[in-house]
Amino acid sequence: METLRESLSEKSSSVEAQGNVVRALKASRAAKTEIDAAIELLNKLKLEKSAVEKQLQASIGNGSHNREAFRQNVVNTLERRLFYIPSFKIYGGVTGLFDYGPPGCAVKSNVLSFWRQHFILEENMLEVDCPCVTPEIVLKASGHVDKFTDLMVKDEKTGTCYRADHLLKDYCNEKLEKDLTISAEKAAELKDVLAVMEDFSSEQLGAKIKEYGITAPDTKNPLSDPYPFNLMFQTSIGPSGSSPGYMRPETAQGIFVNFKDLYYYNGRKLPFAAAQIGQAFRNEISPRQGLLRVREFSLAEIEHFVDPENKSHPKFSEVAKLEFLMFPREEQMSGQSAKKICLGEAVAKGTVNNETLGYFIGRVYLFLVRLGIDKERLRFRQHLANEMAHYAADCWDAEIESSYGWIECVGIADRSAFDLCAHSEKSGVPLVAEEKLAESKEVEKLVITPVKKELGLAFKGNQKNVVESLEAMNEEEAMQMKATLESKGEVEFYVCTLEKNVSIKKNMVSISKKKKKEHQRVFTPSVIEPSFGIGRIIYCLYEHCFGTRPSKAGYEQLNVFRFPPLVAPIKCTVFPLVQNQQFEEAAKVISKELASVGISHKIDITGTSIGKRYARTDELGVPLAITVDSDTSVTIRERDSKDQVRVSLKEAASVVSSVTEGKMTWQDVWASFPHHSSAAVDE
Amino acid sequence: METLRESLSEKSSSVEAQGNVVRALKASRAAKTEIDAAIELLNKLKLEKSAVEKQLQASIGNGSHNREAFRQNVVNTLERRLFYIPSFKIYGGVTGLFDYGPPGCAVKSNVLSFWRQHFILEENMLEVDCPCVTPEIVLKASGHVDKFTDLMVKDEKTGTCYRADHLLKDYCNEKLEKDLTISAEKAAELKDVLAVMEDFSSEQLGAKIKEYGITAPDTKNPLSDPYPFNLMFQTSIGPSGSSPGYMRPETAQGIFVNFKDLYYYNGRKLPFAAAQIGQAFRNEISPRQGLLRVREFSLAEIEHFVDPENKSHPKFSEVAKLEFLMFPREEQMSGQSAKKICLGEAVAKGTVNNETLGYFIGRVYLFLVRLGIDKERLRFRQHLANEMAHYAADCWDAEIESSYGWIECVGIADRSAFDLCAHSEKSGVPLVAEEKLAESKEVEKLVITPVKKELGLAFKGNQKNVVESLEAMNEEEAMQMKATLESKGEVEFYVCTLEKNVSIKKNMVSISKKKKKEHQRVFTPSVIEPSFGIGRIIYCLYEHCFGTRPSKAGYEQLNVFRFPPLVAPIKCTVFPLVQNQQFEEAAKVISKELASVGISHKIDITGTSIGKRYARTDELGVPLAITVDSDTSVTIRERDSKDQVRVSLKEAASVVSSVTEGKMTWQDVWASFPHHSSAAVDE
Repeated sequence: METLRESLSEKSSSVEAQGNVVRALKASRAAKTEIDAAIELLNKLKLEKSAVEKQLQASIGNGSHNREAFRQNVVNTLERRLFYIPSFKIYGGVTGLFDYGPPGCAVKSNVLSFWRQHFILEENMLEVDCPCVTPEIVLKASGHVDKFTDLMVKDEKTGTCYRADHLLKDYCNEKLEKDLTISAEKAAELKDVLAVMEDFSSEQLGAKIKEYGITAPDTKNPLSDPYPFNLMFQTSIGPSGSSPGYMRPETAQGIFVNFKDLYYYNGRKLPFAAAQIGQAFRNEISPRQGLLRVREFSLAEIEHFVDPENKSHPKFSEVAKLEFLMFPREEQMSGQSAKKICLGEAVAKGTVNNETLGYFIGRVYLFLVRLGIDKERLRFRQHLANEMAHYAADCWDAEIESSYGWIECVGIADRSAFDLCAHSEKSGVPLVAEEKLAESKEVEKLVITPVKKELGLAFKGNQKNVVESLEAMNEEEAMQMKATLESKGEVEFYVCTLEKNVSIKKNMVSISKKKKKEHQRVFTPSVIEPSFGIGRIIYCLYEHCFGTRPSKAGYEQLNVFRFPPLVAPIKCTVFPLVQNQQFEEAAKVISKELASVGISHKIDITGTSIGKRYARTDELGVPLAITVDSDTSVTIRERDSKDQVRVSLKEAASVVSSVTEGKMTWQDVWASFPHHSSAAVDE
Repeated sequence: METLRESLSEKSSSVEAQGNVVRALKASRAAKTEIDAAIELLNKLKLEKSAVEKQLQASIGNGSHNREAFRQNVVNTLERRLFYIPSFKIYGGVTGLFDYGPPGCAVKSNVLSFWRQHFILEENMLEVDCPCVTPEIVLKASGHVDKFTDLMVKDEKTGTCYRADHLLKDYCNEKLEKDLTISAEKAAELKDVLAVMEDFSSEQLGAKIKEYGITAPDTKNPLSDPYPFNLMFQTSIGPSGSSPGYMRPETAQGIFVNFKDLYYYNGRKLPFAAAQIGQAFRNEISPRQGLLRVREFSLAEIEHFVDPENKSHPKFSEVAKLEFLMFPREEQMSGQSAKKICLGEAVAKGTVNNETLGYFIGRVYLFLVRLGIDKERLRFRQHLANEMAHYAADCWDAEIESSYGWIECVGIADRSAFDLCAHSEKSGVPLVAEEKLAESKEVEKLVITPVKKELGLAFKGNQKNVVESLEAMNEEEAMQMKATLESKGEVEFYVCTLEKNVSIKKNMVSISKKKKKEHQRVFTPSVIEPSFGIGRIIYCLYEHCFGTRPSKAGYEQLNVFRFPPLVAPIKCTVFPLVQNQQFEEAAKVISKELASVGISHKIDITGTSIGKRYARTDELGVPLAITVDSDTSVTIRERDSKDQVRVSLKEAASVVSSVTEGKMTWQDVWASFPHHSSAAVDE
């Protein structure tokens, strides 16, 4: 890993715009063998460690039933109160597509507003908004067209598709749970398969499916061999059918292709960050896990561009003292669990690769906790070496514990120069930054001058590729070529973009060294990418905020969502105590005031008992309720404590807005206003 | 028109859930002949009127050059300052796709926030958020799969596609503008074609293209006959390839399919409105008009569901006194222009069909004017009868005048029960509302009891269709069938869902009349739909806010966007007057305060002259600039007047936030603080 990254960063700092890309490509090939060996070793280690972990989990084995019951209760409540709705329900729905109903929509909008405030505004990021429809070439450059796949098997008779790893997983789990006749050895083998199957190749997966005799779950028909299925929704741009396009699988590419304009907009200064909130699409083979794995979802992504030689962050000290659950690579490999670590120390020790990455980990932590995520069920897990893309310098996932286990909700990766290099190469537009040198330095520069006329005659349409490859030679290669050309007049030369050797003659290129003054350094910035799965964060938030408590009479369990006011879908309800015109008029006055200061609220004038109305809004997570029981004053009730104070009619809206906007706490209110108790209410 | 609508509304109010749909379908067929005749007459009238209008325009003919120069200036400024960026620019771009860069993104986000406040919050609407990926059946029901098309021609040799009407239009315009040899008759003919071509059928369009010898613009090759091209982006949901889907062409359908859940969520009360903001997609054949006609765009749509028998609106009085430019059908037909009309009178006279429609017209007017749209270049134009869908009761477009002419930016339509009926029919789920009757009434009810056993034997798989059609008979039809069956024992019966006659025997159905008490009225609600093209509104806003003014020295014209603070992308800039640490520290303190109260701002610490920095932010439309010229006080400058006041360092952020949030006007500030003049500044 290190070798590739270092060679990449060395290359990029000495680059003359274009050339570095081709060079990096070649360096990456040279380093590949080394990397493969390292990965193999790591895989082996991980296999051992995971097997141990799984055995441990299986032997504990309890709790899963409780978790399912809890989840069912949350999900039922969410669906009944229209936090979400299976999309196109009247037509039978479509797996993996969900609508946000009114309260869900409000929660999402609150989460995104806070995201904008916490990241874009406070960090002065450049927000962009790019289309979902994306031409093929962009996703070819990013690697998605070739590599964004899952392995699929088909029912050989009906053609029904399944995710190959799901079938194998289900088979193993079912055997382990329900088949009491299997031997201890067999059980150990199945557990082992479960532990390592995510690293299986297509062939390994296919072999296991055959070996276990796994068939299509619905029909028991035989299955095809596994083959890769691209997860992007494909479409066609324009009427001719000749411009393939895809619905973007992530928003990041829209930022990368705009790097140059954004860099100029920022006054050609690094570091800077661009951000985008928007829809992304993944045509999952057979989505499971309800709201956690869907075919269309909102992403919020940040691309922070930084000089690879200086990844310090001026505001790191603001987060350095934070302490929270971190799960570094080493702890995972040695079978330990996540532990509380001080962020500043993690960066100082090199556990976290650099300050900027650390700064974002800290900011993400603050963001999630402010939303209402339980910090005891939030951890930052470092990717193991074989989990990371080969170009990544370091990568941490914010994982939130839910009834489905630990769920990756935010990924925070140092992706080095990979994305900008890939788009530079494909588009031919250099995506680089410059740094003025304090004093110019004299350097001996390699000058490679391809003789285009001769090359054109020899290579026709391939001339451009040959020219680029010649220009991209590093010093060693170029001087070697020069020597060979001088001695033999001809040399075999590998053109990587043509994937073949060509023959270069002496008259086709001149190679020399010249002294030159350099006034600036040109380099490809590194990018640090925090990427937020908004829907996943929201689902985990639902689970963390959900609870039940007995009604006052004790006859039943009542549901409550303990959302912080920041994310609560409705901030306040207004109840006339009884149905009478006077109270209803007062309620309308309060409602108008709340609307004018932008506080979302709801009037409930049904004649239902006040206790029932409280229970109803508790289930929607409304933090405050105003009950109009006179025409001069009202009571305000807080959801979690159920405490009530009496406030004059005129003050009601401003008290509510102070609490929900965080200018006052409920404790402040409790200390400032007379308390109210209503013994008769059944809550 | 009237006949169909009345028959629809009569039917729907007496419906027993399902049956009304089939009946409505039949009624619509019966009324079709009548409608066709009416439309033909209207078309003729419109033809005459449009021809006159076009001649008038052509004879005035001036200004188009100025308009283009103005537009070029606006568009250059927008692109240079990254309000927008052609998408995927480094790859050559894709026609009809644009990115919003940082300031554009901020403007869009401000417009949408205000939309949420003005509509969703103040009107207590139910917001939903549905996926863009939509299964075929939904868009089959809505009519988009069959009818959402434009006419296209192909270059017969290269296959390049063109919009047929564009080619004809270009031909006519070019002839009229550049060919001085054409006769007066020919000129009149071409103008006539321009006036009426939007109503041309595929055949008429093809005939004209042939007659004029129009060829492919790029190659001069012959063209194919025009044929319809569906404007939806098609894709496939899931891996099997057997579930076609589309990227939604509008957001409205997501609301209609959720009607039932939303109605329950609203406590089964009408009226209520649901709203959705989101992306929509149209695969335009060859997009023109820059930012006005794009392939992916943000829509904000409201569906207000209302009892068709009571379209009054409780808050209508709040907008009744508004007076603005309206352009009713009659004025258009008689060649007059738009005139200022009082909204209350327009509804009272029946010019606007009903109070609810009128209320939304008023709210849309207030929304657009608050954003900064010039009210003299905003008009509400009523659809001519042949422009409206056959089911629509009335429709008004908010049109904004831009350099491209009057642009439809918001459509406000009373769509009657059409959409809910269409989805009821297709899904089999009744999308209806109920009203408890104050006292139950005794009605003689038709009872149709199909004998399923006999029908099953006779019609096998078609049984369900026959049963539904039998149950959907109205009283007249049923009693006639009863008589025929009694006399002849058999009757021919048209099953519309099978599109053929079947033979019904006496033992297959029993028909009778019974007295029954009815406690509630079941009906399909009407829907009033205001639909906002957010991108179009924003583009028109750019044009309306753009201006130039001479620099102080008078040497050059400086650009300025006079955005109201509400929509300005950045509310305030902070300039240390000269580069020194003391001033920069003070600027940072102010910046932190602004961020904490959510005011978007930018520090500019470049050493550029203060005049140049003012000019730079004027071009971004920043309303206020704080210049730090001491460590105790600062100046605040207002963009439009260029006036400056002196304010203490501590007060600066709160003055800016008061003005930008509308709590104070600049006049208030001007009256409260000492004035500052800086003669040396070149602006």
